[in-house]
Amino acid sequence: MAIALQSYVQDRWVCPTGGLVEIASAIDGRPVATCSSQGVDFAAAVRHARDMGGPALRAMTFHDRADRLRALAGYLNDRKEVLYRLSTNTGATKRDNAFDVDGGIGTLFAYASRGRRELPSERFLVEGGVETLSKSGAFVGTHILTPLHGVAVHINAFNFPCWGPLEKFAPAFLAGMPVITKPATATAYVTEALVRLMLESGILPVGSLQLVCGSVGDLLDHLTGQDVVSFTGSLETSQILRNHPAIGRNAVRFIAERDSLNAAILGPDAAPGTPEFDLFVREVVREMTVKAGQKCTAIRRAFVPRAMEGEATRAIAEALGAVTVGSPLLADTRMGPLVSLGQRDAVRLAVAEIASDGEIAFGDPNRCEPLGADDVSGAFMAPVLLRCPDPASARFAHTTEAFGPVATVMPYGSLEEAVDLAARGEGSLVASLFTFDAEVGAAIAFGIAPFHGRLLIVDRDCGRDSTGHGSPLPGLVHGGPGRAGGGEELGGLRGVFHYMQRTALQGSPARLASLTRSWIKGAPAPATERHPFRLDFDALRIGDTIETGSRTVTLEDIEQFAHFPGDTFYAHMDEEAAKANPFFPGRVAHGYLLLSFAAGLFVDPPPGPVLANYGLDNLRFLKPVSPGDAIRVRLTVKAKNAARQPEYGEVRWDAEIFNQTGETVARYDLLTMNARPHAAPAA
Amino acid sequence: MAIALQSYVQDRWVCPTGGLVEIASAIDGRPVATCSSQGVDFAAAVRHARDMGGPALRAMTFHDRADRLRALAGYLNDRKEVLYRLSTNTGATKRDNAFDVDGGIGTLFAYASRGRRELPSERFLVEGGVETLSKSGAFVGTHILTPLHGVAVHINAFNFPCWGPLEKFAPAFLAGMPVITKPATATAYVTEALVRLMLESGILPVGSLQLVCGSVGDLLDHLTGQDVVSFTGSLETSQILRNHPAIGRNAVRFIAERDSLNAAILGPDAAPGTPEFDLFVREVVREMTVKAGQKCTAIRRAFVPRAMEGEATRAIAEALGAVTVGSPLLADTRMGPLVSLGQRDAVRLAVAEIASDGEIAFGDPNRCEPLGADDVSGAFMAPVLLRCPDPASARFAHTTEAFGPVATVMPYGSLEEAVDLAARGEGSLVASLFTFDAEVGAAIAFGIAPFHGRLLIVDRDCGRDSTGHGSPLPGLVHGGPGRAGGGEELGGLRGVFHYMQRTALQGSPARLASLTRSWIKGAPAPATERHPFRLDFDALRIGDTIETGSRTVTLEDIEQFAHFPGDTFYAHMDEEAAKANPFFPGRVAHGYLLLSFAAGLFVDPPPGPVLANYGLDNLRFLKPVSPGDAIRVRLTVKAKNAARQPEYGEVRWDAEIFNQTGETVARYDLLTMNARPHAAPAA
Repeated sequence: MAIALQSYVQDRWVCPTGGLVEIASAIDGRPVATCSSQGVDFAAAVRHARDMGGPALRAMTFHDRADRLRALAGYLNDRKEVLYRLSTNTGATKRDNAFDVDGGIGTLFAYASRGRRELPSERFLVEGGVETLSKSGAFVGTHILTPLHGVAVHINAFNFPCWGPLEKFAPAFLAGMPVITKPATATAYVTEALVRLMLESGILPVGSLQLVCGSVGDLLDHLTGQDVVSFTGSLETSQILRNHPAIGRNAVRFIAERDSLNAAILGPDAAPGTPEFDLFVREVVREMTVKAGQKCTAIRRAFVPRAMEGEATRAIAEALGAVTVGSPLLADTRMGPLVSLGQRDAVRLAVAEIASDGEIAFGDPNRCEPLGADDVSGAFMAPVLLRCPDPASARFAHTTEAFGPVATVMPYGSLEEAVDLAARGEGSLVASLFTFDAEVGAAIAFGIAPFHGRLLIVDRDCGRDSTGHGSPLPGLVHGGPGRAGGGEELGGLRGVFHYMQRTALQGSPARLASLTRSWIKGAPAPATERHPFRLDFDALRIGDTIETGSRTVTLEDIEQFAHFPGDTFYAHMDEEAAKANPFFPGRVAHGYLLLSFAAGLFVDPPPGPVLANYGLDNLRFLKPVSPGDAIRVRLTVKAKNAARQPEYGEVRWDAEIFNQTGETVARYDLLTMNARPHAAPAA
Repeated sequence: MAIALQSYVQDRWVCPTGGLVEIASAIDGRPVATCSSQGVDFAAAVRHARDMGGPALRAMTFHDRADRLRALAGYLNDRKEVLYRLSTNTGATKRDNAFDVDGGIGTLFAYASRGRRELPSERFLVEGGVETLSKSGAFVGTHILTPLHGVAVHINAFNFPCWGPLEKFAPAFLAGMPVITKPATATAYVTEALVRLMLESGILPVGSLQLVCGSVGDLLDHLTGQDVVSFTGSLETSQILRNHPAIGRNAVRFIAERDSLNAAILGPDAAPGTPEFDLFVREVVREMTVKAGQKCTAIRRAFVPRAMEGEATRAIAEALGAVTVGSPLLADTRMGPLVSLGQRDAVRLAVAEIASDGEIAFGDPNRCEPLGADDVSGAFMAPVLLRCPDPASARFAHTTEAFGPVATVMPYGSLEEAVDLAARGEGSLVASLFTFDAEVGAAIAFGIAPFHGRLLIVDRDCGRDSTGHGSPLPGLVHGGPGRAGGGEELGGLRGVFHYMQRTALQGSPARLASLTRSWIKGAPAPATERHPFRLDFDALRIGDTIETGSRTVTLEDIEQFAHFPGDTFYAHMDEEAAKANPFFPGRVAHGYLLLSFAAGLFVDPPPGPVLANYGLDNLRFLKPVSPGDAIRVRLTVKAKNAARQPEYGEVRWDAEIFNQTGETVARYDLLTMNARPHAAPAA
């Protein structure tokens, strides 16, 4: 009984009014679901995202959104079995589900953590430092990032019905943008189930997630410069979307992940018998067989030193021979079918093209004897290893993507040749390099870096820990130049910023400090009536300041500081030698003596809201302090940030140490953990 | 006698073979120059950039390129009079030249400084921190940026024939990408003269700069995913370029600055009589008249509180009445002509459209009596102030850009209304806000930030220092979403990164440390035979390490440290109170005591290559140290960077303090200035 897929638009599930497409099981061709977006009011979906989802998300802080992501990840993690079960019909094995379902949930967890750890408890983000724009310092600039006011349209590929939507959703949600997600039809029933879970969780604000099962209709017509399209799929489809008139006219942000003929390169040092050779063989086989090779990051081109071509090919072929292809329902199956018979046809065509550049070294693209199934009604295909003996003159091997369990071995001579050949992919998502030789690593890595979004260097030191050639990770950018689409996703906060507008702010220090809630030199720094260390986190205001009295640094102080901690560096101890130093006028005080004396000047000894000094940033000693100089300190609240525990808050203080003539001798950010006695207990 | 403009391609000046276009003087219509790119071999130009310019630039470090930029800026600065003279025929006054010529040279200087100050003496850049990718720490990731291997095609607008090419050239050159620059025909003779100077300087490597005067021919056909197109001009032209098949197919990076109906907003607090009111009037008039309003950043829409509409309009009109329009050759002239009669026709048409939304409040678009010229042969136009009384229902005022001395005054009611009206520009480069009220500032700034690339908040505190609504600055992003094109230029290093590929690197700590020349925890840290403080800058290797002996921290030490610098914070002095603190087990050592003791453990007292400890970064106290604990230090060379003076180098050390059980109690980056005794003297 086929599932009748629905779209979720304007807060309700919408049944298609016609145009149904039948989706067949990859295993046996039986109908699994029907799908159509006919009847969806796309203009209303966009409006709903803008009018409901956007405002709700923008009312939340980054921390609020991060907490929702964490809750959502936990909710899905407890219910993922249903996704596993549905995925079977797409051809996914248990191993494949670890990538798709668990990988997707893991990405939510990862962005939840980053949001808490790397973003403030604010609705905007200050990016980079303060630019002084006038000599007097009365005119300054800085940058902020704020969420775009539109909708993020996510158009996903069939191969990752869970990870695909989730890796796009997590950064958009954290940024504060509502999402309309559209799965590829072939596996839309898995995504529909995923979205049902996400909505049922009750964790997402109304309008923050909508689903379109079927074509995008006239959705793109309604997009503006506040919207984002993030696409994963073929070059052809990407072109059609990108050239839609509204996209160019309104400069809609367009992120694309497309075809990619990713390379794996075996270093000349990695001869048979080395760990790197074995790691290479294992990785090529894994990339060919996980998801039946239907991964945009899979290895398509395996470059090996000419002298090792035979052995490498044999070793890969041998390992491929041990891969059991069959129904994902069976425990013995290592590789499932392709997603559809149509997909298999496309792969067979591509194999034929590439084979014209050489030959098939292993496997038969047209015959497969799957366990527990057949290759007539099921889209099974055995792994195929091709050989292209003259890759410099290949016509297809560098440009035809066989999106299945297919790779081509190609020999190279010099390292320069390996670099040139890898670049013939015209831009890829990822390349991997198997070498234990630093010079080989540097020559190839820097040679091919401009053509790749990610480079993996595998050797005996990390082989066991490596997450693999084909695994995009939340903390590293995923995307590549040229053929790969020029897009960039993930990469930690980088992926979040695609959904935000960067705006330069210019004005007086007072105005910019007040807007950004971050003190800037030149902004008001009012001395508080009570010592600011007596004020708890919530009472402290940005700009609150203590100006200390001064303390003369004597030669005796310097000598005592030298002998006690034991830092008898000549610049502190030997007048003649110090004078010969290009930076010092003679004996000078230790930098840490200044820090310590400064603390002595501003610290308030009895227990109070300041619980600990947990660190210090950006300390620069700007002018030497000589015996007889008198120092004083200005300490100003620069920024406040909620900590993980509601009982505390982090306070960043701008500390500046002056000498008796008012010159700055040192400047730094002091970090303290402050109590919030009146905070509500943790929820 | 008209100048016969040439292109500069493949290292030689190329005369057009036909298709000449005549360029007329803006002042009197006399022919100034002829221009055509017919005969230019565009494929060869691209090849030349790739084969000669790219490799030459990539062989240089950021510092090398920065030094060339500085030399180039100095060279041009000494010869700018010729550019001033030529610019006169474009209609530019002396004031206009300060923006175009001096502004362009200033941008070169600014990027030279940034390159030296903010980039390493390397050919690549490490971006962001290290990501730990496995539990054991044996698999890590980081990101690098390397220059793209293609060519940067810069397509410029007519209004800034010097600043335009230079603000695009500086970041591309610093990134390491060769440039083909194409001026707009109307003012190409100024750019041609500029490029002649740049080439004559002998400062630029062969192939790093080529010039196309005339159309771009089939240039775009030859671009790949390693190339960049940066365009400034109209929405229409941008669309034609962007939709060129090669751009989309190859995912050529495409940066666009287009139409922008920038807003200036007078705050409700900024009533007549306040400094902010006067600053607003001055700014509107300045933006309407500098470059005769032919600036993509000019104020086109002036929003004023409804109650102040009359007074604001009168004040602007009065100031406009005092603007003398005339030949830029005359000292009394404040505003010159538009660039061409055709441009004036276009502006008059736009004025007529906008006037249909209201009326002309001041000025006659069709009549002008210029000083020392006439408005029949010269493209003179008097400033025109329009009024749109009902901006919520305007058809043209928010979307028709009159690219001349034209602005429209529009009233608003609430702050929300002001925000909504500003957003009707559908994305702008810049908006300015005139208010001294923090709440008005925050409400409008955060309301319109997502629609703008830059926001200027002007008040009495910064009015005198403000660089103005219309001035993009090298350190702040220039570009805006939506109608403005969605591009981003400048913004300090952000503008450089558009010409570089970001690549995630994954591998073992050892491999990544060696590749990035930056030590990573887990990478080899060999103890040097001699104390590393005895090794000069050039002899020190990344990873060189000293492991110190240990020192027990006694209660007496803590007491002495408390009383001597005077930091008697209770956590050090009072066992009971310290125990009550959530972070401490009882009395603990001062953080600065740990730093000082650590220095005592690793410092090598006699004079040597280490000249000074100039600072410290990222210090975190990770675990309290109690009386009786013994600490020791590992100090490892993390990174090295050439200083401005060749005699020194900056060394960043990874410092980690451990306790007697091997737990990390503190970690930080220590910064020292080290001698390079064998360095060549400064050139």
